[in-house]
Amino acid sequence: MGSAKEDCLGYAARDPSGVLSPFHFSRRAVGVDDISISITHCGVCCTEVVWTRNKYGDVKYPVVPGHEIVGLVKEVGSNVKGFKVGDHVGVGTYVNSCRDCEYCNDGFEVYCSKGAVFTCNHVDVDGTITRGGFSTYVVVHERYCFKIPKDYPLASAAPLLCAGITVYSPMVRHKMNQPGKSLGVIGLGGLGHMAVKFGKAFGLNVTVFSTSISKKEEALNLLGADKFVLSTNQQEMLEVSKSLDFIIDTASGAHPFDPYMSLLKTGGVLVLVGASEVKLSPISLLLGMKSISGSASGGTKDTKEMLEFCAAKKIYPEIEIIPIQYVNEAIERLIKSDIKYRFVIDIKNSLK
Amino acid sequence: MGSAKEDCLGYAARDPSGVLSPFHFSRRAVGVDDISISITHCGVCCTEVVWTRNKYGDVKYPVVPGHEIVGLVKEVGSNVKGFKVGDHVGVGTYVNSCRDCEYCNDGFEVYCSKGAVFTCNHVDVDGTITRGGFSTYVVVHERYCFKIPKDYPLASAAPLLCAGITVYSPMVRHKMNQPGKSLGVIGLGGLGHMAVKFGKAFGLNVTVFSTSISKKEEALNLLGADKFVLSTNQQEMLEVSKSLDFIIDTASGAHPFDPYMSLLKTGGVLVLVGASEVKLSPISLLLGMKSISGSASGGTKDTKEMLEFCAAKKIYPEIEIIPIQYVNEAIERLIKSDIKYRFVIDIKNSLK
Repeated sequence: MGSAKEDCLGYAARDPSGVLSPFHFSRRAVGVDDISISITHCGVCCTEVVWTRNKYGDVKYPVVPGHEIVGLVKEVGSNVKGFKVGDHVGVGTYVNSCRDCEYCNDGFEVYCSKGAVFTCNHVDVDGTITRGGFSTYVVVHERYCFKIPKDYPLASAAPLLCAGITVYSPMVRHKMNQPGKSLGVIGLGGLGHMAVKFGKAFGLNVTVFSTSISKKEEALNLLGADKFVLSTNQQEMLEVSKSLDFIIDTASGAHPFDPYMSLLKTGGVLVLVGASEVKLSPISLLLGMKSISGSASGGTKDTKEMLEFCAAKKIYPEIEIIPIQYVNEAIERLIKSDIKYRFVIDIKNSLK
Repeated sequence: MGSAKEDCLGYAARDPSGVLSPFHFSRRAVGVDDISISITHCGVCCTEVVWTRNKYGDVKYPVVPGHEIVGLVKEVGSNVKGFKVGDHVGVGTYVNSCRDCEYCNDGFEVYCSKGAVFTCNHVDVDGTITRGGFSTYVVVHERYCFKIPKDYPLASAAPLLCAGITVYSPMVRHKMNQPGKSLGVIGLGGLGHMAVKFGKAFGLNVTVFSTSISKKEEALNLLGADKFVLSTNQQEMLEVSKSLDFIIDTASGAHPFDPYMSLLKTGGVLVLVGASEVKLSPISLLLGMKSISGSASGGTKDTKEMLEFCAAKKIYPEIEIIPIQYVNEAIERLIKSDIKYRFVIDIKNSLK
């Protein structure tokens, strides 16, 4: 253990090797509007690779990643109205915002016009650097905390806070929740598998596109997709030409867009949530008044709605629970897409 | 004159040189649902360059271009309900469609699921090749003809049928007709100058983006734009960062998209109506749930609405009226963007 002040134990990367190891640090005192959360689980998102290995060149080491946080409330500030000690709660990709702009006022805090404060490696309003959920506890303003319904397993709730909301929010915003419509899902990782589950829960006809035939059986039988298309097979692609109302593109690697745009019906929308460069012919957009739209995570309003929806519809991410000591190997496997479909760290039982 | 059957005189290109010269041909007999139109004027769109010079490699020479057609009804079929001899009418970019699919039924014929029949160089339902408005008359099914309000100058109406509707339709569809919102217009040619006029008529704050400072005075003083930004000036671009609700991109040449996406507010939309390759960073879409959307011309419903709107609001395209004998020189000037802002051929007085 560190000094009395440094009572939070986390796993941090110290340099661009990205190797995570134990790290003691302090959290801010619980303010009047804050809650302190004893973390039980934290999901492992592909963004952890970006943070730990400094892919964008902006990392302030040591960095403690983790933004799919769930746990139990252990302390509440004097003004806190929404939570009490013992509540099951989650924290996602952001922990602060201006709370004053039109986006914050509409519950779209992630698009705060002054910039949302992300859960790790960002400068918080008090000047400290935010540290994420690969740690024993966290102190967060209650506005950015979400109740996890009591009967929803805590470990399963973790991936909802980033992977889940990142696909749920644009699906609802673009009216993909209309039963009978057809949805294409590109990529079957943490985000893609949730898009399939939401798609089926919304009553859609869901087609999964993947470059890997090995995903076919699980897509159809485990996740319940209606159709699987091997995206490298031109004949299979041609057969679904102009058949989709929406596509949600979760692929993070470079891939062509024109072939997918040709699968959309007139007026169709491809929503991009992965991070691949967009390059396409104008004809792909012009001839069928089609659109490409981006989306990042979701606001507090959508997140609350999604958590209720998942509990009501019994939608659970597919997870592999790991001890924190396995996290470096897990990240290596994540890079190779060797995970079905989300690692969740058992913080409570392994980080001591 | 040609034989008795070949009673239509047009200007046709015979080969990829694109040079237009007199050409006699026949039109189909007026069917029960058709009207025959004595053409008075025809606009010159940049698409004429594509058709006459075979830019897409699909031209069936000889080709008679022209799809911004206006004139007077000279004959009507026995079933025709909407028109009578002497009416002022227009024909735009398409002259047929299946009239049975969901898009046709919704008045979006240009997006007909069997493919709309374009006004020139397309195979019509009777197997003939369509020939456009650089000609003395045309026979068209009444569904694809539009009444021009009586007090609206015929020459001015011509550019509305392609340039006008191509910007009007997506502006209305994307709700750019909300007074007080801010609109950016990229490019100030035939389409761009109409987007500025519609923008002002909708009560928007309009900013024009151009690579040519020579367009500044006319943008502000003649067209009534609120602001002019030289798009090559980074400081000027920076000053309008995150300030626009919409952008309509009429530029046909290659240009970067990321700088323009950064000018959009959160949730903003760039509508592409020009034909430049789209290439941008996913971040440009993801971080502000922004969209790029395409649009091509407009359906019959929008076109009728636009013609009424232009008459009511006294919106007139800026035109240069030319005799047909000047058309080859006009197309050369069009390629050099040496036109403010649309050539309209005086067919009635020069094509004899």
